[in-house]
Amino acid sequence: MKVTIGGRTRHYRTVSFNAAANAVELIEQRLLPHEFKIVRSRDFQQTARAIADMVVRGAGAIGATAAYGLAQGARAFRGRDVERFSRHLEVVFQTLKSARPTAVDPVNAMLQVRRRMSDGKTVAEQQEQALAAAHAFADEDIAHCEAIGQHGAPLIRDGMRLLTHCNAGWLAFVDVGSATAPMYAAQTQGRGFHVFCDETRPRGQGASLTAWELAQQGISHEVIADNAAGHLMQRGEIDLVIVGSDRTLGRTGEVANKIGTYTKAVLAHRHGIPFYVAIPLSTIDWSLKAGADIPIEERSADEVLGAWGVVESPKSQVRSSKSEIRNPRVQSPKSRSGTRVYVRLANPTSAARNPGFDVTPAELITGLITPAGIFKPKQLWAERRRLGGPR
Amino acid sequence: MKVTIGGRTRHYRTVSFNAAANAVELIEQRLLPHEFKIVRSRDFQQTARAIADMVVRGAGAIGATAAYGLAQGARAFRGRDVERFSRHLEVVFQTLKSARPTAVDPVNAMLQVRRRMSDGKTVAEQQEQALAAAHAFADEDIAHCEAIGQHGAPLIRDGMRLLTHCNAGWLAFVDVGSATAPMYAAQTQGRGFHVFCDETRPRGQGASLTAWELAQQGISHEVIADNAAGHLMQRGEIDLVIVGSDRTLGRTGEVANKIGTYTKAVLAHRHGIPFYVAIPLSTIDWSLKAGADIPIEERSADEVLGAWGVVESPKSQVRSSKSEIRNPRVQSPKSRSGTRVYVRLANPTSAARNPGFDVTPAELITGLITPAGIFKPKQLWAERRRLGGPR
Repeated sequence: MKVTIGGRTRHYRTVSFNAAANAVELIEQRLLPHEFKIVRSRDFQQTARAIADMVVRGAGAIGATAAYGLAQGARAFRGRDVERFSRHLEVVFQTLKSARPTAVDPVNAMLQVRRRMSDGKTVAEQQEQALAAAHAFADEDIAHCEAIGQHGAPLIRDGMRLLTHCNAGWLAFVDVGSATAPMYAAQTQGRGFHVFCDETRPRGQGASLTAWELAQQGISHEVIADNAAGHLMQRGEIDLVIVGSDRTLGRTGEVANKIGTYTKAVLAHRHGIPFYVAIPLSTIDWSLKAGADIPIEERSADEVLGAWGVVESPKSQVRSSKSEIRNPRVQSPKSRSGTRVYVRLANPTSAARNPGFDVTPAELITGLITPAGIFKPKQLWAERRRLGGPR
Repeated sequence: MKVTIGGRTRHYRTVSFNAAANAVELIEQRLLPHEFKIVRSRDFQQTARAIADMVVRGAGAIGATAAYGLAQGARAFRGRDVERFSRHLEVVFQTLKSARPTAVDPVNAMLQVRRRMSDGKTVAEQQEQALAAAHAFADEDIAHCEAIGQHGAPLIRDGMRLLTHCNAGWLAFVDVGSATAPMYAAQTQGRGFHVFCDETRPRGQGASLTAWELAQQGISHEVIADNAAGHLMQRGEIDLVIVGSDRTLGRTGEVANKIGTYTKAVLAHRHGIPFYVAIPLSTIDWSLKAGADIPIEERSADEVLGAWGVVESPKSQVRSSKSEIRNPRVQSPKSRSGTRVYVRLANPTSAARNPGFDVTPAELITGLITPAGIFKPKQLWAERRRLGGPR
């Protein structure tokens, strides 16, 4: 999507590939919204670290990063020995896979690249196929998001007030995003609307990433505390909710997504407000039989007990720069527009619970916006052939 | 309640009066949970600033502070001229009233003090009555909270897991608190239980004040993001909710309280979890006819777009100290255990909405725990005579 820095507007993808440098280029998401910076990963080990250290996050974005990382590793191989190339490729694959062990997207993306590589016989042919497949994966990710946008855009009528949770925007994909796709499409179609962005504690992706995205696209929006949505619904100030999904059960229509999604679905249901979930096909899990079986990751207590922010300084502004990933292990990147610090918000002698996700039952979901159209959650299983599911 | 600093345990009230020094002594709540400090206000102007600058907050606590401030101002008068004393007292009254113009508690508390002062004829007699009345107000505040505790304690059974929102604890009153009173009473009665404290963004009173209180009393507790309660209820991990109230409508049983309370009530209702509101009689509004008529204060956007916290340092710990209020206008008190800073969490070019309160309808409330017993919200009007209401 477009990004405007110092009056200049350019189009960026979250993940792209520089073939001449054999480098993966990523938006450094840990610096957003305070600084916009493209970092360049020179080899597959750096690319794996970028995934592990959350330089890049979001299902589609880490899938594409892994796909490009595999191509990058393949292209770095010198020689013609197909056997040795094969062993090298396995190392690359395992390195990228282990960067985010519980995520399925990097593995699925890399398997797609590897399948296409088998079309090539020589090392050179396979290297060429690897890059073509990674590009195809990235382009398909965008095409799916755009299809979600086309199907979802008619839901957004002129003057509507929307609510979204967390970041299911273009930063979580190669471009366009899932929950944001209908918004960007409706904007292109000339309609005006307003978006409330849930802050999305504890990590604050709504306040930082989604608000930044919408500001860059010139979409009217405001950040709200996660506590405020119920009140706004009660006073009739929210017309439509669109969120993303980390995993959708193909058999039941249940949706696992960022903690707090379930709460918003319960509130929307009470107030008769349509609640839609935008889902790329890759997030549909056709095997699990019940939402209660979805393992809910318990994340670090420090996320709840404090927050990362930038100490306010009057001259702070968003800047652009381009540089290598010098030290992807840095835990607290410094932004030139201010010092990024971790502050303790809670009582220092208290502990915290921090479930990362929750599960929203099908009956609270008005519809699932997929690249193949909008479906009721309970329709997924019947439509599984159209949606890339099992027979 | 008891506070343990450096291994020494002492009992403190949130607000107390030092007659020898004619000074109001307050817990400096803006430093909690990072530092525990008693500040001494030497004259009624300083006391008014302490209320205005949120050194002290919470309905009962600011009521008692204003009552003591009026006595303090009365006692500072030199001379025997009753006319001049009366004009002086009016200045004191107006100064304290204007410290928090929308709050009703300081005014009600001061009217109570003034009524009792009319029992005295001479200036000296009236000064004496003023202090006696302020003490009586503070003691009554505690007695009401203790009565709430006695009525509410039987709701808490051994092994239960509770949820509370914001801080309706002893720091918001002279002592004991409202929502926390049943917890402290159940603890005294020997029962064990666990409390989840909603962080309560944007101001974080649950993570900072309530968690600090429970830690000091040795009550098992954990802080959670406001987004997490729905998930915990869904997994059967919450048995009971107790919150406080800023204003309860005597005619309808609707409860206005900190933003996010309504959301928790909706979730509790869906999961069949009892939802109780602890209300001192002073928070009952007998005149308003509908919750929709309650004006909802829109607070500063900066609260949502960022947060105040202490930059983490490994040696941080809670310390005790006692000093004057040297400069109650200070906006960013420095704690010796770390620097207290405002950090920007959100995209710097985004705006925010920040409603401070919401209204929970009667049908979502299992019961109101009052000093006179537990009532259904719709019973309030019928029981108004017992509850200090109109005829």
